[in-house]
Amino acid sequence: MKSRAAVAFEAGKPLQIVEIDVAPPRAGEVLIKITDTGVCHTDAFTLSGDDPEGLFPVVLGHEGAGIVVEVGDGVTSLKPGDHVIPLYTAECGECLFCKSGKTNLCVAVRATQGKGVMPDGTSRFSYQGQPLYHYMGCSTFSEYTVVAEVSVAKINPEANHEHVCLLGCGVTTGIGAVHNTAKVQPGDSVAVFGLGGIGLAVIQGARQAKAGRIIAVDTNPAKFELARAFGATDCINPKDYEQPIQQVIIEMTGWGVDHSFECIGNVNVMRSALESAHRGWGQSIVIGVAGAGQEISTRPFQLVTGRTWKGSAFGGVKGRTQLPKMVEDAMSGEIQLAPFVTHTLPLERINEAFDLMHEGKSIRTVIKY
Amino acid sequence: MKSRAAVAFEAGKPLQIVEIDVAPPRAGEVLIKITDTGVCHTDAFTLSGDDPEGLFPVVLGHEGAGIVVEVGDGVTSLKPGDHVIPLYTAECGECLFCKSGKTNLCVAVRATQGKGVMPDGTSRFSYQGQPLYHYMGCSTFSEYTVVAEVSVAKINPEANHEHVCLLGCGVTTGIGAVHNTAKVQPGDSVAVFGLGGIGLAVIQGARQAKAGRIIAVDTNPAKFELARAFGATDCINPKDYEQPIQQVIIEMTGWGVDHSFECIGNVNVMRSALESAHRGWGQSIVIGVAGAGQEISTRPFQLVTGRTWKGSAFGGVKGRTQLPKMVEDAMSGEIQLAPFVTHTLPLERINEAFDLMHEGKSIRTVIKY
Repeated sequence: MKSRAAVAFEAGKPLQIVEIDVAPPRAGEVLIKITDTGVCHTDAFTLSGDDPEGLFPVVLGHEGAGIVVEVGDGVTSLKPGDHVIPLYTAECGECLFCKSGKTNLCVAVRATQGKGVMPDGTSRFSYQGQPLYHYMGCSTFSEYTVVAEVSVAKINPEANHEHVCLLGCGVTTGIGAVHNTAKVQPGDSVAVFGLGGIGLAVIQGARQAKAGRIIAVDTNPAKFELARAFGATDCINPKDYEQPIQQVIIEMTGWGVDHSFECIGNVNVMRSALESAHRGWGQSIVIGVAGAGQEISTRPFQLVTGRTWKGSAFGGVKGRTQLPKMVEDAMSGEIQLAPFVTHTLPLERINEAFDLMHEGKSIRTVIKY
Repeated sequence: MKSRAAVAFEAGKPLQIVEIDVAPPRAGEVLIKITDTGVCHTDAFTLSGDDPEGLFPVVLGHEGAGIVVEVGDGVTSLKPGDHVIPLYTAECGECLFCKSGKTNLCVAVRATQGKGVMPDGTSRFSYQGQPLYHYMGCSTFSEYTVVAEVSVAKINPEANHEHVCLLGCGVTTGIGAVHNTAKVQPGDSVAVFGLGGIGLAVIQGARQAKAGRIIAVDTNPAKFELARAFGATDCINPKDYEQPIQQVIIEMTGWGVDHSFECIGNVNVMRSALESAHRGWGQSIVIGVAGAGQEISTRPFQLVTGRTWKGSAFGGVKGRTQLPKMVEDAMSGEIQLAPFVTHTLPLERINEAFDLMHEGKSIRTVIKY
């Protein structure tokens, strides 16, 4: 079938809005009509060409919501008309990782997803006869997309897609990291580095968890008002201090924070976040995705004196079993999504979403088909 | 009083066996007659002059056992005749850290201990009228030493000091890291980097914890026999492989080990250990003490895909409440200490213990007063 799509033909160039061909879903696959998709920094990172694993031409986008149109052979958990969120972190329920009960990092479709193809090794997208790569198993920048059944969360059909599409990536990543990875407890202190969508979601998660002090850190003080609205108790700008920000936080708190979260993807900030963690038990969670080849470092003394360095992907959330509940929480107001959506645009203007992001003017722009 | 002691007058020089003066214990302090002391790599590190916090002249030694001779004012938990192990990690029971229930890193005497003096800021040791520094709050290389009450574990008087002195540092560090820091569960896989005293203790702890596979890693295959005797199921020498050892371990295990332990103090090995950890949930515990200014590094992707980097000091063991039980375990054979004691020497020959260590010929030399 034909589908409107924003295609990244080349790294570093704007997306082109074209009509592509989408092949029907094969066995174990689902055709979804995307209704809304967020534009995330990871899309921008791949589009920039800085992602060494980036493949072109490609249909980007991985933070969407939509409705199932058609299912392939053997698909039992979904049917046409189901409202869904595509998952870049699949949940097959059968692999070593899914069965472990210790992680959400399912490997069912990992190898082919990384190669930009469906699990059978081929693409469902083409433009003028040339195949296009899939992206993160989602490719939500096409109105119609094909996704593996294991990569689809079925959600409440009453949910507002303009909002819950954000649970496909950033907001779930931030809130999930608080609950699943850090396991923040009532009264705990928290520092959040970077007040983009993920950082703000971490703040929201920390407030849900009844954290005591929530310290928001950003070099752009324009972000502090919303951070406070979400629950930040202190907002600090590293540019206002001569000493390293970790030292500022240690002085503010006595011994550092119980949990720190890096929500930028900057390896230097990852170090600051670790070193802001409380001696004896503080932990730091890396959420941001660093540039290719970049490394984190610190003195091992930081670990030996009781700090723990961890990471979180998709907030440790198992998409098919846990995301539907998060959608319910969004519908009940327990999770607030509306404040994240600072802009909405039609697909034709998707390149403006990248501009808004790069200019620091948006939290999330949602593209509406 | 007069006391035989091995004094480090200068960095990089052999210890000198001299008679020093030991002042009586002040309030909250205890005078101990040391009967046995191990010689640990940390003593050698400080003696070498590479430790930027090393102070001279100093009475080194921190892995001892002895008998209380006299107690200062206000000391209630100890009396003359008590058999004890001095603790470089105090346990006051009152500080933020002791009360947290989350760490053994008591801060009661931390500041003064780091400065080589007793909690009141002065030294109890002098030689020909010149003060000598204390070391790690223990200074077990003097036959008579003064230690803070909070830095003394009272143990079963029937215990063999030649063996249980090793619970003052290395063996407790290794076994404790398995149980308290990593919390190894039955069937878990483990990799141990470095087969010195700590590494062998980790293997012993892993077998106690009923770990499944226990992979021992060392560049000296002469250590493999004892590693196997302690419970290692696989022994590998990085020199036997072209690829990085973490890749070897990942190939051996499929996805890496559930727990890895760095027991050397080499920052490159710390990286290998982390990257040997299982995708999704593997954790790596830094135990070894790295040289001054050295840093650990890795790609943050290692953390984001589910690995955790931690450290352990004194095995996470609270000395006064937990060490007595470990002494009982050593007496019952649940913890084996005899195989660690490869050499015993009188105090006068203590410099030979450092030679044996540097030549890789000893696991532990115990000095007997």
